[in-house]
Amino acid sequence: MAKIAFIGLGNMGGPMAANLLKAQHQVAAFDLSAKALEAAVAAGASRAADVAAAVKGAEVVITMLPAGKHVREVYEGAVLGAAAKGALLIDCSTIDVESARHVAAAAAKAGLDMVDAPVSGGVGGATAGTLTFMVGGPDAAFARAKPILEKMGRNIVHAGASGNGQAAKICNNMMLGITMIGTCEAFMMAKRLGLDAQKLFDIASTASGQSWALTSYCPVPGPVPTSPANRDYAAGFTAAMMLKDLMLAQDAARSVGASTPMGAEAAQLFSLFVGSGSGSVDFSGIIRMIDGR
Amino acid sequence: MAKIAFIGLGNMGGPMAANLLKAQHQVAAFDLSAKALEAAVAAGASRAADVAAAVKGAEVVITMLPAGKHVREVYEGAVLGAAAKGALLIDCSTIDVESARHVAAAAAKAGLDMVDAPVSGGVGGATAGTLTFMVGGPDAAFARAKPILEKMGRNIVHAGASGNGQAAKICNNMMLGITMIGTCEAFMMAKRLGLDAQKLFDIASTASGQSWALTSYCPVPGPVPTSPANRDYAAGFTAAMMLKDLMLAQDAARSVGASTPMGAEAAQLFSLFVGSGSGSVDFSGIIRMIDGR
Repeated sequence: MAKIAFIGLGNMGGPMAANLLKAQHQVAAFDLSAKALEAAVAAGASRAADVAAAVKGAEVVITMLPAGKHVREVYEGAVLGAAAKGALLIDCSTIDVESARHVAAAAAKAGLDMVDAPVSGGVGGATAGTLTFMVGGPDAAFARAKPILEKMGRNIVHAGASGNGQAAKICNNMMLGITMIGTCEAFMMAKRLGLDAQKLFDIASTASGQSWALTSYCPVPGPVPTSPANRDYAAGFTAAMMLKDLMLAQDAARSVGASTPMGAEAAQLFSLFVGSGSGSVDFSGIIRMIDGR
Repeated sequence: MAKIAFIGLGNMGGPMAANLLKAQHQVAAFDLSAKALEAAVAAGASRAADVAAAVKGAEVVITMLPAGKHVREVYEGAVLGAAAKGALLIDCSTIDVESARHVAAAAAKAGLDMVDAPVSGGVGGATAGTLTFMVGGPDAAFARAKPILEKMGRNIVHAGASGNGQAAKICNNMMLGITMIGTCEAFMMAKRLGLDAQKLFDIASTASGQSWALTSYCPVPGPVPTSPANRDYAAGFTAAMMLKDLMLAQDAARSVGASTPMGAEAAQLFSLFVGSGSGSVDFSGIIRMIDGR
């Protein structure tokens, strides 16, 4: 079993580290939050005094951090200097593609294998160990990371070179954000036109309007009993998280000169929704704003 | 077998009437285009001199016309006056919800059963008799229309009261138009980020980015061999038809005070694409515009 350093034990990192411990890995944990660190220790991790202390002697380093700037700071400020020769670096944070590639290049220069491996599946998936990992990095690094990631997730996909894990995630989530708002607009227009939501669902779900947003995560209560609409839009995947991913997509589009008019509109609409105080609501709850509530 | 009047024998109406003839119905045909009328006669229809002549003595009247104004003119100018007592009226045109409800109310006042029954499935579906009909109108009228529509389509759905067939179609197609552009944006951003199209497809098609636009009608060549992207965007469903439906959705949204920011953006983007001379291209070809080609 591997000696693993785990940096960042928040809502996602905490349960992910717990699953590594359940799989009999040794985990040295660090988080700026004493409370988060405490919970990891309670789950069986050893407490590290700082990032460098956690990383020292580890065969695998896993990070789960809020944004690109934290990833740059943690890797360039501590991990790359403290990591043992031959250590494997896995960044599970969802960050901008540029930062992911920048840090991966620095790791390569230091002679270390690294992958970016952002996740989807939320806190529920992290706890159940059913996350999807979208992984960017060289084949050899992916092959080393896969058995570790399999202790925390069910679906481990290699998306190509460094940064491509991030690229895959924001491309997927940009499609999702756009499609969800479009689905919300259709249901609210249907309501005003006197077309029953269940009728629209029955028709569109077997036609060209079908999408995961419609048939797995329907934004009106009723047609899909498991969707957040049936529990007053309790998240799920929060509107704030969707806004973060849509903003990362806009950063990426700008950096490579891609045109994303619908992606930009979706980012602006989620910005309005989050700005109105709905950041912690499930992202499908944007239907309330579309409805004028 | 029924005596049917069929008004409007264009790309869609022509093959639909041919399927009624194949089912041994008697069809009296009329079209302003001599060529379209000629083709229907060649398929076995009898030639009518005008709308009133076609409708006279018919048990069922079917119309397939370009827009709301034509439907108003044809019904209020001829059909309602000429139709036999007890005749069933079926308008298969895709038109604005307001016109559909206006004409249905006039038919009801004249004591005639009427349904709006717009289709999806395109010329291919019309020819093969596999169209989907989205039907609005009273239960009794739907029950009468169903066996007739079944000779031209495979999926006959009752969407509720008069106008709801149109409402269902534009709600579905608005979701489709929005989702398709979002999918195109994701693929073009992925390309510039160095993420392989097949990889993005493999990931998103089993994740929350999944949609019919992605998995049945993928806008890049390769992942879905039957999609128009693999035949240089030969339609399929033309960009001009998608623009028409998105504009009808905007009309409907305005008429009932529904907010459709993504629907409006999609309509504007298809307007740009069609305006650049690409109206006859498949609607998924809008990816060329997104790509800057």
